[in-house]
Amino acid sequence: MVLSGIWRKQDGSKEPQPPAITVKHEKEIPAADIQDLCASVGWSRRDPELIARALANSLSVVSAWEGELLVGFARATGDKVFNATVWDVAVRPSHQRRGIGRLLMVALLEDLDQYDIPLITLYADPGRDGFYRRFGFNTDPYGVRGMFREKDGV
Amino acid sequence: MVLSGIWRKQDGSKEPQPPAITVKHEKEIPAADIQDLCASVGWSRRDPELIARALANSLSVVSAWEGELLVGFARATGDKVFNATVWDVAVRPSHQRRGIGRLLMVALLEDLDQYDIPLITLYADPGRDGFYRRFGFNTDPYGVRGMFREKDGV
Repeated sequence: MVLSGIWRKQDGSKEPQPPAITVKHEKEIPAADIQDLCASVGWSRRDPELIARALANSLSVVSAWEGELLVGFARATGDKVFNATVWDVAVRPSHQRRGIGRLLMVALLEDLDQYDIPLITLYADPGRDGFYRRFGFNTDPYGVRGMFREKDGV
Repeated sequence: MVLSGIWRKQDGSKEPQPPAITVKHEKEIPAADIQDLCASVGWSRRDPELIARALANSLSVVSAWEGELLVGFARATGDKVFNATVWDVAVRPSHQRRGIGRLLMVALLEDLDQYDIPLITLYADPGRDGFYRRFGFNTDPYGVRGMFREKDGV
């Protein structure tokens, strides 16, 4: 999948365009690239071996690349049957507001829809629910509440 | 694990006690038993083959038995590393208010804690968040909101 056109000026002028964005569906992403992306959005550093194991155990992993640079990432866990949960949607700040988050969500939901999963869930950071509503997600339907249990020190 | 004592009267009298509850950690549970339990709590009927596949793809499955009768169930999905999500906590109405839900949650969290997972999430039905708070779960920390996307017709 190649992102195109969104940098094209409406007047059709031939402004130099940045390299195209490619979306991949492979689980094998170098841990160093993931760490770099996580650092760019202020997430805590994670152990490379743990990253590899978590990706392997994910139901779907999608990533966005500008050439060799990992510029976005998203993944989902689940049972392949009844439910899936979207985690770790991240776009490098230097590449935000270009539609890359949307590309990642579309690619991830395409992956999940092939399993015919009836329920997909996620946890939206404050102010981000509007983004996810565009993909059919709703907050707290039927009064259901998301709850979290964090291990000490995390 | 055997539930004992909760029916013992405080005066020590020898009232006949109901059969003990046994908690199992096996993923192989006959689909007919699951269907029967789900029907008892008003959940929709699920295909036996899909049930077996979902259990096999779960991170942990715990069940409570009174002899041959499945009286409670809970499971979790996840990546075995960074997160897990608790699903389908159910206790047969005839066996509720006996501490079986607590037994199931303790057993499930024991399973998950062996992976050293930093974040465990769940979606609580209306009015059920008090039950989960006892196990360290909180609603919407940091303003994070649970969101759902349901397939048409589900």
